[in-house]
Amino acid sequence: MTITITAFERSPDGGKGLARDTRVRWALEEVGQAYKVRLVSFRAMKEPAHLSLHPFGQIPTYEEGDLALFETGAIVFHIAQRHAGLLPDEANARARAITWLFAALNTVEPPILEFGNARLLEQDKPWYAERLPLVADRVRNRLDQLAARLGDAEWLDGPFSAGDLMMVSVLLSLRLSGILNGYPNLAAYVARAEARPAYQRAFAAQLAVNTGTPAAG
Amino acid sequence: MTITITAFERSPDGGKGLARDTRVRWALEEVGQAYKVRLVSFRAMKEPAHLSLHPFGQIPTYEEGDLALFETGAIVFHIAQRHAGLLPDEANARARAITWLFAALNTVEPPILEFGNARLLEQDKPWYAERLPLVADRVRNRLDQLAARLGDAEWLDGPFSAGDLMMVSVLLSLRLSGILNGYPNLAAYVARAEARPAYQRAFAAQLAVNTGTPAAG
Repeated sequence: MTITITAFERSPDGGKGLARDTRVRWALEEVGQAYKVRLVSFRAMKEPAHLSLHPFGQIPTYEEGDLALFETGAIVFHIAQRHAGLLPDEANARARAITWLFAALNTVEPPILEFGNARLLEQDKPWYAERLPLVADRVRNRLDQLAARLGDAEWLDGPFSAGDLMMVSVLLSLRLSGILNGYPNLAAYVARAEARPAYQRAFAAQLAVNTGTPAAG
Repeated sequence: MTITITAFERSPDGGKGLARDTRVRWALEEVGQAYKVRLVSFRAMKEPAHLSLHPFGQIPTYEEGDLALFETGAIVFHIAQRHAGLLPDEANARARAITWLFAALNTVEPPILEFGNARLLEQDKPWYAERLPLVADRVRNRLDQLAARLGDAEWLDGPFSAGDLMMVSVLLSLRLSGILNGYPNLAAYVARAEARPAYQRAFAAQLAVNTGTPAAG
């Protein structure tokens, strides 16, 4: 059955790979599943046809036969659950990998989203300069803990998993801020993940959309 | 095998049920699994023994035989996956219920956490009064979309699931703010969930800890 995902017709980041379709493309590349992409404009994302697929009016979505999913974490989990390559077979190791998937999305990402909101939505506010360091400290608090746990390990728990894919995706959204530079082991962890051929293919495919060249996906 | 979770020795909410152990207690009650609780002080949460179990120094954790998990979403998912009662059997319906679990944690909860941070950590800041309504609007934006999707349905997608359990838990943290009052169908959805015997038992068990009476769990 054909897998179809949605992505921005024109990503707000201009192709830096930070839109959430990259996370899903990466997962599909890791497990070797071909996919089609339907591009959606900002206007169409808020219209009934897309809202019936994604109640929060965002991308990506995932369609395969009569299954339709939204929410990046759920899509990546679904892919990891159905195809070998992103979750260990052994039950306990699998549960731990899934733990990291949730930790990326609900413990590490929320302060990063708050930091992003400050930079994106409050730059013209009188409190911006004084408040931003407070929000950055909330991010650093989490990164301190994550860096301590990762230590010198290659990945968070055994072989590369959907948990690493999501944690790296979350950390990538911080890189332009420079905050990651204070964490050499996290920066190296992100670089290791980016060097994976599957990530490279996913990144190239989203870049092709945003530079107008034919998509490879 | 005995299931042991951790909870606050003394919850910051004094027993209102908003600490995250309530989410896990609720899931265990829904699937009819007995559990033990190990209480952890704020100081002990930041010490090596607890950090080895939970890298971010929080509660709850979950131990069962040689399996140790952290992160509420992952624990609830694990419980739902292993025991009947929180996820449909049919594969597509199951994937959709899991989608709502992730949507609660990564789409609906982040703006609510940001709102909570503003109220908890920035009340003494000069920008507090002007900024709070902006943050509340980010929450309302998500609630508008969620309310539109829920409509008159009893639960988000078919029978009550782990997705509803998590969405209601996320919404409960908003109730004291009054924001939920603007959404009669969401308020009724939350009330339906709270009326479930499993929620009642979970709430009573956490309350017993916080009022010093013997825990029922």
